[in-house]
Amino acid sequence: MLKNSESSERCPVGEALKVIGGKWRLQIIHEIGTEKRRFGALKRAIPDISEKMLIQELKHLVAFGILHRQAYPEVPPRVEYSLTTYGQKILPIISQIRSFGEILLAKAD
Amino acid sequence: MLKNSESSERCPVGEALKVIGGKWRLQIIHEIGTEKRRFGALKRAIPDISEKMLIQELKHLVAFGILHRQAYPEVPPRVEYSLTTYGQKILPIISQIRSFGEILLAKAD
Repeated sequence: MLKNSESSERCPVGEALKVIGGKWRLQIIHEIGTEKRRFGALKRAIPDISEKMLIQELKHLVAFGILHRQAYPEVPPRVEYSLTTYGQKILPIISQIRSFGEILLAKAD
Repeated sequence: MLKNSESSERCPVGEALKVIGGKWRLQIIHEIGTEKRRFGALKRAIPDISEKMLIQELKHLVAFGILHRQAYPEVPPRVEYSLTTYGQKILPIISQIRSFGEILLAKAD
């Protein structure tokens, strides 16, 4: 009984927001999109994020299986982030956010 | 020229996330959905949010025209929040978040 009651509390929206909610995660996923992006490129694309926070959020997204981190044994070392197949399932959310953003910008004009 | 360059920087995704990004806003919008919700009901639905933060986030969403705040002249006073027509345009984002949440829960099982 307890188990049922627990599982009925696991709202898909709430569970998803635990993983992709927060100030930066959707922005990072949007900036990566279908590309491979280096740390420095992400930092430049999201200038308001601190380096510490970007590192933390990338680690979180890698830990949740949303991002793939590829380190190349080069000098200087090169690290690229891309969405995993699982992470790509977040892109339809980004598309809907874009649609809303277009409405928002049209409203602001 | 400057104006063009400025407007080209206004990415719809980034602009949308300025309004609906953050830890709580999409959760609040999800909890309201197509209903009218009282402050206390929202507080119970999102137990992890502090009362101060919920007040702040509701004010933000009202200021951005996403929520309508209806105060009834009753004793005790009753205040209800609902999505405006504009705010309802965020619901397709919630639907996509739900789809991702269902994938996430299926993956976790």
